[in-house]
Amino acid sequence: MNTFQGSCPIGFGPTDRVQMAHSGGGRLMHQLIDRIFVPHFRNPILATQHDGALLEIDGLRLAMTTDSYVVQPLFFPGGDIGSLAVHGTVNDLAMCGARARWISTGFILEEGLDLTTLERIVDSMARAAAACGVQIVTGDTKVLERARGDGLYINTAGVGMIETDQRIAPDQVQPGDQILLSGDIGRHGIAIMSVREGLEFASPILSDSAPLIDAVQALLQAGITVHCLRDLTRGGLATALNEIANQAQVQIRVRESAIPIEEAVQGACEILGLDPLYVANEGRFIAFVPADQAEPALEVLRSVPVSQGACLIGEVKSRASHPEVILESLIGGERVLDLLSGEQLPRIC
Amino acid sequence: MNTFQGSCPIGFGPTDRVQMAHSGGGRLMHQLIDRIFVPHFRNPILATQHDGALLEIDGLRLAMTTDSYVVQPLFFPGGDIGSLAVHGTVNDLAMCGARARWISTGFILEEGLDLTTLERIVDSMARAAAACGVQIVTGDTKVLERARGDGLYINTAGVGMIETDQRIAPDQVQPGDQILLSGDIGRHGIAIMSVREGLEFASPILSDSAPLIDAVQALLQAGITVHCLRDLTRGGLATALNEIANQAQVQIRVRESAIPIEEAVQGACEILGLDPLYVANEGRFIAFVPADQAEPALEVLRSVPVSQGACLIGEVKSRASHPEVILESLIGGERVLDLLSGEQLPRIC
Repeated sequence: MNTFQGSCPIGFGPTDRVQMAHSGGGRLMHQLIDRIFVPHFRNPILATQHDGALLEIDGLRLAMTTDSYVVQPLFFPGGDIGSLAVHGTVNDLAMCGARARWISTGFILEEGLDLTTLERIVDSMARAAAACGVQIVTGDTKVLERARGDGLYINTAGVGMIETDQRIAPDQVQPGDQILLSGDIGRHGIAIMSVREGLEFASPILSDSAPLIDAVQALLQAGITVHCLRDLTRGGLATALNEIANQAQVQIRVRESAIPIEEAVQGACEILGLDPLYVANEGRFIAFVPADQAEPALEVLRSVPVSQGACLIGEVKSRASHPEVILESLIGGERVLDLLSGEQLPRIC
Repeated sequence: MNTFQGSCPIGFGPTDRVQMAHSGGGRLMHQLIDRIFVPHFRNPILATQHDGALLEIDGLRLAMTTDSYVVQPLFFPGGDIGSLAVHGTVNDLAMCGARARWISTGFILEEGLDLTTLERIVDSMARAAAACGVQIVTGDTKVLERARGDGLYINTAGVGMIETDQRIAPDQVQPGDQILLSGDIGRHGIAIMSVREGLEFASPILSDSAPLIDAVQALLQAGITVHCLRDLTRGGLATALNEIANQAQVQIRVRESAIPIEEAVQGACEILGLDPLYVANEGRFIAFVPADQAEPALEVLRSVPVSQGACLIGEVKSRASHPEVILESLIGGERVLDLLSGEQLPRIC
C-alpha cells in the first residue's frame, strides 16, 4: 500500500463508483489507497509505504505482503496465473530485503472451471514455490456462480525473513542515489496483450515473470549498500519511479536511451498504442544505491541470470516539495513522466 | 486445509468441473483438497491439517492462516463482509492457540461498486481489527469488469503468536475427550438466508460473527488442558466434528438434546429445509478436553461473553479405522452425521 498523506476519509457521493482504472497502478488507484484504505487502517507499519510490511517481534525481523491475481488469460507465453502468484509475493518480500519462507493461498473459483485447468495451475504454483524455496503452508477455496466464463482468482500472502541489517525502504532514498534497472521492460504486459489481441510475432514475446530473490540476495551478500528496491508491476517503470519519488519526496531523472526495450516489444507497443514505460513487468526491479555503489552493484546484478541485463538508467536529483520524474528523451528533450490517470492494461496481473 | 490422505493427483477428465458444492465444506470440497491441493503443495506444515499453519523460527512459534470472503449480501443482520473477514482470520489463529498480530488484506472489487459501500466495509474491518488488537499491515486491490452487480471479495491472511506451550491440534484428540460447544448454533447462516429469502421474524436473527480469541485465551490462562479447537464455519457443527473425527481417526458421539439452537433459528431451518447442524456459524467453536477438564473449562467459557452459552455436547469414544460421528437424537435413536455431499448454503462466508 501507498502514501500515508490522505487525511480524513472524504465523503463519497452515491455516483462515485469503482472503475477499472482503480486497479491500474495509476492516479485513481493511489486515490483509493490514500482516501479509503490508509485513513481507516492507519497504523505505523502500513505507513512505511513499502511493497511489504516490516514486522519486528522478539528481535526477529519479518516482512509480510499480499497480492490477488485476476490475470486474463490464465495461461500466457512465459507463465500462468499460478507461477505469477508465487513470483509476485516472493518478489514483494525480496524488495524488503526478505527471503520468502511461507505462503498462504486463497482460491476463488468460478463454477464450471475444469479441474484439469485447476490442477495445471496448482502444479505450476507448487513448482514455482519449490524453485523459490518457499512453502505453501495454508489455503482456502471459495466458489462463485458461473458468470463470465471459466475463471479463477488467486490470493497469495507471504511471510519472509529479513536477511540484512540494512534498512531498505523508500524513506532511505537520497539525492545523488543512482537508479539501476535489472533488465529490459514491457515483456509481461505485451505477452498478455499478444494473446488477447491475437498478435503474432516471428518469435513469441515471453512474460518476464520470475523470482527476483537471487538478484537481491547477491547484492546484499556482496555488501552493496541498497537504499531502496521496487519491482515493476502494474503501471510499469514509470509508475514505480513516481511512487518512489512521491514517497521519498525527491525529483528523479532518467534517460530514455538507457532503458532497454526489446525491438519486438517496442513494435508491439506501437501497434497497440501503449507506452512501454507504463507496461507491466513481473520479473524486473529498480534499485536505488549510493553513487559509489553503482558500478559494483551492476557487476553483481549482471552475474545473476534474472538480472543479467541490468543497467544504470538515471539518478535522484534533489529533495522536492513537488516530487516528479523527468525523462530525458531519445531526441534530447525532456518530459515529465506522470502517473497515468486511466487504466492502460486491465487484468494484467 | 484438510486431510493429507490424498495420494497422487488423479487424472481429471475434461468433463470434471468446479461446482458450487466445491466450497461448501462437504465431501466435494474435501475431495478437491485431497486430490489437488495437498498432493501438489505437499509439505510437513500443510500436513498438520489445522485451521492454521504452525511455523517455528528461531524458537518463536507463529501461526499463519488465510480465507477469502465472497458472502452475499455484503451486509447482513449482525455483521458485514468486512468484520467477517477480520473475525474469520482471527478465529482461525485462535484455534491454533495463537493471538492474531498482523493481517494482510486483498480486495477484489467489481467495477461499478459504489465507493461509499467500499468505505463502510473498510471502516467495519478497521473497527473489527482494533477490537481484536490486530493490525492490518499490508494490502492490495484489483478490479474486475462489471458482471453480476456490485460486489467485492476480500482475502485476509493473518499471522499470530502462539501463546501456549500446549500443542493444540487434531492429532492430540484422544478417546475419552469431552467435547464442549461454545454456544447456540446456526445464527450466521440463518441471518444471511433471512436477507436472501426475505424472511421476517418477530426479532431479527443476528449473525454470531465475533472474535473467539478471548474465550480461547481464558481457557489457556486458566491452565485448562486443551487437545483441539475448531471453529464452526461452512458446513456447521456436523462438518467440524467430521473433520476432527477423520483427522484424529476416532469415533465421536454427540447428544442432540445438548446442542443449543434458538427457537427462531430452528423455525427458520424448518421453513428453509435446512439442518441446523450443518448451518454456518462465525462465532462458535468446539473444544476437545480431557474428561477431568470439562467442568472447569465450561466454567471458564461461561465467564466470557462470547462463550457464555457453552455446554458439553458429547465425547470421543474410540480410535476408529472408519471414523464417524454419531448423533444420539432427541427421540432416542442414533444416526450418523456424515459430510454433506452437496452444497447447503452457497456464498455464506
